[in-house]
Amino acid sequence: MELSEGTEDRDFSVASLGACRIDSPLAPLVEARRTTEAYVDEGDRVLFDDTISMVAARGLPIERLPSFEPGGPRRRIYFDPAKTRVAIVTCGGLCPGLNDVIRGLVLELTEHYGVRRIVGIRNGYQGFIAKYGRDVVDLTPDAVAGINEHGGTILGTSRGQQDPEEIVDCLERLGITMLFVIGGDGSMRGAIGIGRVVGERGLKISVVGVPKTIDNDIPFINQSFGFQTAFSRAAESIRTAHVEARTVPNGVGLVRLMGRHSGFIACYAALAKNDADFVLIPEVPFTLTGTNGLLAHLRKRVVERGHAVVVVAEGAGQELLNPEGTDASGNQKLSDVGVYLRHRIVEDFEEAGLEINLKYIDPSYTIRSVPANPYDSVYCLRLAHTAVHAAMAGRTEMVVGRWHGRFVHVPMRLAVSRRNQVDPDGDLWMSVLEATGQPARLG
Amino acid sequence: MELSEGTEDRDFSVASLGACRIDSPLAPLVEARRTTEAYVDEGDRVLFDDTISMVAARGLPIERLPSFEPGGPRRRIYFDPAKTRVAIVTCGGLCPGLNDVIRGLVLELTEHYGVRRIVGIRNGYQGFIAKYGRDVVDLTPDAVAGINEHGGTILGTSRGQQDPEEIVDCLERLGITMLFVIGGDGSMRGAIGIGRVVGERGLKISVVGVPKTIDNDIPFINQSFGFQTAFSRAAESIRTAHVEARTVPNGVGLVRLMGRHSGFIACYAALAKNDADFVLIPEVPFTLTGTNGLLAHLRKRVVERGHAVVVVAEGAGQELLNPEGTDASGNQKLSDVGVYLRHRIVEDFEEAGLEINLKYIDPSYTIRSVPANPYDSVYCLRLAHTAVHAAMAGRTEMVVGRWHGRFVHVPMRLAVSRRNQVDPDGDLWMSVLEATGQPARLG
Amino acid sequence: MELSEGTEDRDFSVASLGACRIDSPLAPLVEARRTTEAYVDEGDRVLFDDTISMVAARGLPIERLPSFEPGGPRRRIYFDPAKTRVAIVTCGGLCPGLNDVIRGLVLELTEHYGVRRIVGIRNGYQGFIAKYGRDVVDLTPDAVAGINEHGGTILGTSRGQQDPEEIVDCLERLGITMLFVIGGDGSMRGAIGIGRVVGERGLKISVVGVPKTIDNDIPFINQSFGFQTAFSRAAESIRTAHVEARTVPNGVGLVRLMGRHSGFIACYAALAKNDADFVLIPEVPFTLTGTNGLLAHLRKRVVERGHAVVVVAEGAGQELLNPEGTDASGNQKLSDVGVYLRHRIVEDFEEAGLEINLKYIDPSYTIRSVPANPYDSVYCLRLAHTAVHAAMAGRTEMVVGRWHGRFVHVPMRLAVSRRNQVDPDGDLWMSVLEATGQPARLG
Amino acid sequence: MELSEGTEDRDFSVASLGACRIDSPLAPLVEARRTTEAYVDEGDRVLFDDTISMVAARGLPIERLPSFEPGGPRRRIYFDPAKTRVAIVTCGGLCPGLNDVIRGLVLELTEHYGVRRIVGIRNGYQGFIAKYGRDVVDLTPDAVAGINEHGGTILGTSRGQQDPEEIVDCLERLGITMLFVIGGDGSMRGAIGIGRVVGERGLKISVVGVPKTIDNDIPFINQSFGFQTAFSRAAESIRTAHVEARTVPNGVGLVRLMGRHSGFIACYAALAKNDADFVLIPEVPFTLTGTNGLLAHLRKRVVERGHAVVVVAEGAGQELLNPEGTDASGNQKLSDVGVYLRHRIVEDFEEAGLEINLKYIDPSYTIRSVPANPYDSVYCLRLAHTAVHAAMAGRTEMVVGRWHGRFVHVPMRLAVSRRNQVDPDGDLWMSVLEATGQPARLG
Repeated sequence: MELSEGTEDRDFSVASLGACRIDSPLAPLVEARRTTEAYVDEGDRVLFDDTISMVAARGLPIERLPSFEPGGPRRRIYFDPAKTRVAIVTCGGLCPGLNDVIRGLVLELTEHYGVRRIVGIRNGYQGFIAKYGRDVVDLTPDAVAGINEHGGTILGTSRGQQDPEEIVDCLERLGITMLFVIGGDGSMRGAIGIGRVVGERGLKISVVGVPKTIDNDIPFINQSFGFQTAFSRAAESIRTAHVEARTVPNGVGLVRLMGRHSGFIACYAALAKNDADFVLIPEVPFTLTGTNGLLAHLRKRVVERGHAVVVVAEGAGQELLNPEGTDASGNQKLSDVGVYLRHRIVEDFEEAGLEINLKYIDPSYTIRSVPANPYDSVYCLRLAHTAVHAAMAGRTEMVVGRWHGRFVHVPMRLAVSRRNQVDPDGDLWMSVLEATGQPARLG
Repeated sequence: MELSEGTEDRDFSVASLGACRIDSPLAPLVEARRTTEAYVDEGDRVLFDDTISMVAARGLPIERLPSFEPGGPRRRIYFDPAKTRVAIVTCGGLCPGLNDVIRGLVLELTEHYGVRRIVGIRNGYQGFIAKYGRDVVDLTPDAVAGINEHGGTILGTSRGQQDPEEIVDCLERLGITMLFVIGGDGSMRGAIGIGRVVGERGLKISVVGVPKTIDNDIPFINQSFGFQTAFSRAAESIRTAHVEARTVPNGVGLVRLMGRHSGFIACYAALAKNDADFVLIPEVPFTLTGTNGLLAHLRKRVVERGHAVVVVAEGAGQELLNPEGTDASGNQKLSDVGVYLRHRIVEDFEEAGLEINLKYIDPSYTIRSVPANPYDSVYCLRLAHTAVHAAMAGRTEMVVGRWHGRFVHVPMRLAVSRRNQVDPDGDLWMSVLEATGQPARLG
Repeated sequence: MELSEGTEDRDFSVASLGACRIDSPLAPLVEARRTTEAYVDEGDRVLFDDTISMVAARGLPIERLPSFEPGGPRRRIYFDPAKTRVAIVTCGGLCPGLNDVIRGLVLELTEHYGVRRIVGIRNGYQGFIAKYGRDVVDLTPDAVAGINEHGGTILGTSRGQQDPEEIVDCLERLGITMLFVIGGDGSMRGAIGIGRVVGERGLKISVVGVPKTIDNDIPFINQSFGFQTAFSRAAESIRTAHVEARTVPNGVGLVRLMGRHSGFIACYAALAKNDADFVLIPEVPFTLTGTNGLLAHLRKRVVERGHAVVVVAEGAGQELLNPEGTDASGNQKLSDVGVYLRHRIVEDFEEAGLEINLKYIDPSYTIRSVPANPYDSVYCLRLAHTAVHAAMAGRTEMVVGRWHGRFVHVPMRLAVSRRNQVDPDGDLWMSVLEATGQPARLG
Repeated sequence: MELSEGTEDRDFSVASLGACRIDSPLAPLVEARRTTEAYVDEGDRVLFDDTISMVAARGLPIERLPSFEPGGPRRRIYFDPAKTRVAIVTCGGLCPGLNDVIRGLVLELTEHYGVRRIVGIRNGYQGFIAKYGRDVVDLTPDAVAGINEHGGTILGTSRGQQDPEEIVDCLERLGITMLFVIGGDGSMRGAIGIGRVVGERGLKISVVGVPKTIDNDIPFINQSFGFQTAFSRAAESIRTAHVEARTVPNGVGLVRLMGRHSGFIACYAALAKNDADFVLIPEVPFTLTGTNGLLAHLRKRVVERGHAVVVVAEGAGQELLNPEGTDASGNQKLSDVGVYLRHRIVEDFEEAGLEINLKYIDPSYTIRSVPANPYDSVYCLRLAHTAVHAAMAGRTEMVVGRWHGRFVHVPMRLAVSRRNQVDPDGDLWMSVLEATGQPARLG
């Protein structure tokens, strides 16, 4: 998960709307405990590096080491809660915990900062655009009671971008001073556009993101919300494949999981129950054919044990499908790697004169639509709290992150600049190799 | 669930290998309680009819009313446990509870009758046939400990028939005196063939079935094992579809469930959480087009509420796909009704100029591969006990059933003669109509 | 589960407020299907007996055989939906499914009969009594949406009786014409009192009960709602006890379950996972001491296997605690049999010089407060539908039952006249003896 | 979670049995990937500090900053796998994940290092002592297959210390060269004693610990294994209390959770579902009486809302119970704070003339005996892998830790020197205060 050497050139500083001159309404709570330690020390920074060799290699004085602004409540805030009007929008695909984040934002804003006007935008960025005709939703503590026990998002969602000028028109019309965007990297790119227009117009609207990715591929955040819930459910699908495969002659279970760019769900799900024999992820290329290819190894495993389970992340093996829409053999490109593998595996067994009973499982909706598990619920709540503290303190064009176990502020541009990926040389992937027994190189 | 008027002509009597002359080894257990009521009264019968009008309409003396032989332990048994050798085979598709039944058979045979030699046949009827080269498995209490906590079947399974002569050759070679077949109606037809050959050769081999059908379509059994587990899991898939559908603009969730001939899983799963707007089952025909067809009603629902969920049993709407492999419009027949509906619904919305976000979910493997829930576990255990009692008493070519809450013996020929179906005039289907709000007739 | 020989003297006929002269609003739904079979045939009856020997022993003409009125929708109803005002009350201890029943009643009344005024009474019968000052709750389809996903009852509950005169005063004040009581046998006795006062005052108020007992001890109902959910959860507690017991030297797990008069939960929970070594239920007396007592057998089991699990229903072994509040030894009576057994087992091991690590588990609240599982959800819905059909048809002082798989009407007086109990000579108890390996007689 | 200023004086260096001269058998796996990055760089260290202010305050050159040795596979190892004989022991109370750790150790040792002789010690340290007469268990991959799906530990456990001399006698007798201790801080103190005797006798036995504490109170480990599983289950108990409390008049749910010294489980469980009104933990003192005490606030809450839920960690409020076994009022000391609070709350309501329906729930066994959830399963596996890598490289008297998201080696003496506790000034506790609405100070 290390950044490249160029890290020190990156700008870790977070934009702000202005100086904080208002006493936080949290003060009585804190004062009651006769301590001020609950407030974040504005002068401190969370180190980016975590090893002595990384720090030493910087050759920088300590105070110039790359570092993040810590999250948490500030003694002084930028916005007057009585005059703050908040909008919340959820964008992109479903992920366990969306409702938890919405609820966490609303409760923190109302119960602790005393903000009274919060609206939810319907169906992602579409909800800002007049032609879609979507009403906004009033978000009160009553409106969010218990929503965390259901999957999905009460606000609905949609994919794709909308014109940032039109979005800011809408924000102005609604008198919004604070916008929370819960979404993936596309949505954060959209939020950067919104922030740019806000700046051009000289408005004082804070734009803060809570990064959402079921794939766990967001940089600067140890584990994205919903990830644990997601891989736990994915592990059940691998179990299903294993049960199916071992009850028929020459059974092959093939499970297609999320993971466009990162194989975290596939890796963790495979480790959780140890039912998988092969795990294929975007970070580790493989070949199908040849004596060391997947097909040869799979045949061998089935002949030896009578069955096998293959787990493939949706972004794995893209190099096997050529960009013109046909695969390397000139066949029509299949819609996804799972379907492609299913076809190739069956074909390969048939060519080898081997019986095969292949069971193909694609559990995507099942995984992403469930309610957050207790860990993710707590995590969503705390991410939401951090986002609210940041926005109330006037921070903008940033997302909440988690680094070395601390909540931090990450500039939006940095958050969309790269992805977390499984390190093919790291201990997670080695654990997967050990647990599955698959070769270190397929091909 | 009523039989047709011709019931009284049916033969409810169960075949037997001969007179029971051996004292049941259960005797000490029973004697310790100083009662003989634990034994089944061989002279009694469980009434087929359950209403006064049914009985009256028979016009028969009471003792000639149609009735089943009750299941349970007999004071005297046919087989000498010390000389009994048992084979167990599981056939056809997976169903929650297969391992529970295997375990129940083994424990009852060993712990209570003292039978010492039990073998499992691998991969269904294939396991009897030499060319497949499958070894048998020794089934001891240790070998079955904890297997009920896993889905699938430890014996494996396969589909299709094998030559009954060859199967009986194998039974003779193994010295088997008692064969338990756990399988669906195809498997029971196979078992009838085995019983016929056994009879022709004058062998004394009891052939007893434990009927398996995840669809709950076995006659003379109130609820088939695994059914509750299955529809509970299916309800989760409908929930998934509902969560997905309601979070996108014009979302339609389409869930394809089991149910070739009977819509019980679809009905119960739809009632369990009330997330479905339309339930389509084999027992109730429907049309797609026209002002009262499914498509018009679905469009209306989506326009009014923003989303809808359709649940379709795999055997529903078969009349819409013509037998030559093309649908009524002459298009190539799609592989199943779920895929066909997906295509037609999207096409219909597009023709109407309506946006649609359809999410298609086919959870079959997930539903059938899970371990039995506690109810089904207990039920499997008791079915297995009943099957063992029957076989030890020399009954053959019968399956265990459950009628009016009592375990009964049902001749195999009767068990494959018809199917349980959802009664379109009964209270179950009316409850579904009420819960979904769908019209009583689609088309 | 058989009644005593005196059954034929019992009155199975259900009271009614008068003739049904109003066409059921369900008619269009039924007509659309061009059938009238959906209506219950008012002339038919569900047979009480289920075997030929029972029927023969009656020596009665068929039409006089003991039988129940079948449940279900009637072609003609007694109450005009537009003028119907309904009250619903939940009484006594929690049971999974209470919210499902409330929701089922409200949806059936509103969606299908068009009733518009339904109120919920708060905290059981207390809610009728002025001095407790509880408001009623309006019950609309919106108010009951999703309540079935939570345990407990949205109406609250309380124990104990209230003055029926005062209750009927309240019913009159509210203009109620139909009262649904969801409660146990104490509550049904209360409902009988309410029905009596209603009759004395010449009012036309239907009083219909949905019998609730987590113990499954209601007569004339194959399985009470919530029972499956309850024993499934109880099985987890036995698993806990087993895990705890087997990880320590001489571990004894002792689990106290519900079951004042009936051991169904203990039996089913013990069978579900087979972790129990001894099951003690109210129906089967046992002794502690002596060579064949529980303590001697328990010590033996622990010495042989290193651990053991004892499951005790709360009503078991009451004969060991004398009525004056002291046990047979004159010691102060302990609060319950679980605590008493814990004390006696530890004492006994210590006297025998044996190490013991006893883990005592009393999971009552956990079991009764969970949401209904999918089966119980469907079952509650259908019980509620049956109750509504009965009340709309003017039936009163009756509860809904289920007999031989059919929904039936049972007079309230009959429903409180006896209890379901585990038959010590039946196959359920024999399965428990076989699964645990415990002696048929302890003592 | 910060250490005191004296950190720099602490010794973070890990003991080692000697130089590593053997090529790791992992080499082929690594070489196949043509990379050496999979090996830990022996020269690197993981920083103890995570903020710039902490580092700056040290005033130390970078290479002398406090830091941990990173965990992971080494290029060269100390032990020859062919000659390595391993013992594994589990000590103290149950915790979800014990079987996962055992399985992870066995699989890593056998599959990847090729170690062939691994034994399990029965019932904790007792298993080393002759007088208890416990056999050792052979631990092969087959013996550990699937054990992670069950709670508890297949090795059993016991509490308390045993003579380290006798333990080392046993290790010598068995020819053990590597001992893994899975246990809490008492067990790690025992392991330190074993290491001391090993050193005194000049033996080459590596003693490596996997720290176990359901309370999450181990220092230098971000989250202890089993913690997530535990608090998830604990959240269910709080839900139970909430359901019970809100269905009765003036209902109070009181839930006693683990947490002798740290309130992490109570805090996380309370945040997971937000059903709690008061959370009491060891780190934050409170008083019962007085206008700002718990009792006054609880009464107020119940009067306002009709019900309330109190969660108490077992170590909370110990200052209220005096050391002589009597409480501050001179009453006999009750066995635990939960029982004490139950008594005091009921008494207080009665004195105030308020009805109370208190439901007391102590779910300890239920929480600790469940199987690990998928996250904890993966985490246990990776902790076990790290422990094996460390031991194979000759490290000793250390435990595996996790610091800033990295697996590290922590000297045993350091691991038992202090405890993780909830920071009363940190964001976790502030989130709890916000979620419950309880005052920052009670008393």
